[in-house]
Amino acid sequence: MDRESIILLVEDNEMDIALTLDAFRQVHLSNRIEICNNGEDALNYMFGRGNYTDRKLHPLPDLILLDLKMPRISGLDVLREIKSTEKLKRIPVIVLTSSKDEGDRAMSYDMGANSYLVKPISFNGFLEVVKSITNYWLTLNIEPPLE
Amino acid sequence: MDRESIILLVEDNEMDIALTLDAFRQVHLSNRIEICNNGEDALNYMFGRGNYTDRKLHPLPDLILLDLKMPRISGLDVLREIKSTEKLKRIPVIVLTSSKDEGDRAMSYDMGANSYLVKPISFNGFLEVVKSITNYWLTLNIEPPLE
Repeated sequence: MDRESIILLVEDNEMDIALTLDAFRQVHLSNRIEICNNGEDALNYMFGRGNYTDRKLHPLPDLILLDLKMPRISGLDVLREIKSTEKLKRIPVIVLTSSKDEGDRAMSYDMGANSYLVKPISFNGFLEVVKSITNYWLTLNIEPPLE
Repeated sequence: MDRESIILLVEDNEMDIALTLDAFRQVHLSNRIEICNNGEDALNYMFGRGNYTDRKLHPLPDLILLDLKMPRISGLDVLREIKSTEKLKRIPVIVLTSSKDEGDRAMSYDMGANSYLVKPISFNGFLEVVKSITNYWLTLNIEPPLE
């Protein structure tokens, strides 16, 4: 990579967005983080539609953190679209949800989620999860080539 | 899970098998580790064929560590078969290879590899990778339901 990895956070809950950004700050993550507040916005970003037609301004992310429970277009819908599209399917998608539901886990993995994490309830727990995400996915894991 | 996770290591290089098992021992991993020395054996294991017809003796693994460069049936062949088969596709597959090749990375992710790791050259580096694998995939990541 000749640039720092970009993370796309897809999350509709303002508290969870604030918590995630705060955790990223605490682990001194300097990477660019793009935020989409709902499934439709996430699909627009990924497919370069709507406000996201300029790929130079809105480059494809190297890692996607995806909430599941969102109104109208759910995280599973977003996942299905990404993972059934050439060029997009290779981007790692980490489901980050409060659901431990067996059906959600089965469907997420079956649709091609790279990993499935459950949001811890405490801030310290959340911090640990964010630390692990950055350590594993931004340091150890070798990214796919984009394009 | 009502039992400890089982790891399937698919690796043809005896040195790398010894190194991985040694690293697992050093991180005090008590999980059961199954080893397949080549791609054909790995497919037999996953599809319950050949020596692996009894699923009670040879349960499906919860995590697969997959080498790419193997003679005859390569890691990419194994990956393609697993990820195009219902019930098997949801099992996380971590590619663990010495190849940083862009084509290998692209193909691995496109075929559904959950993560792609490059084997470090030093034993200490290898130990760190194994530690991260166990921390992330056996502790933090929430597994798919099997069956």
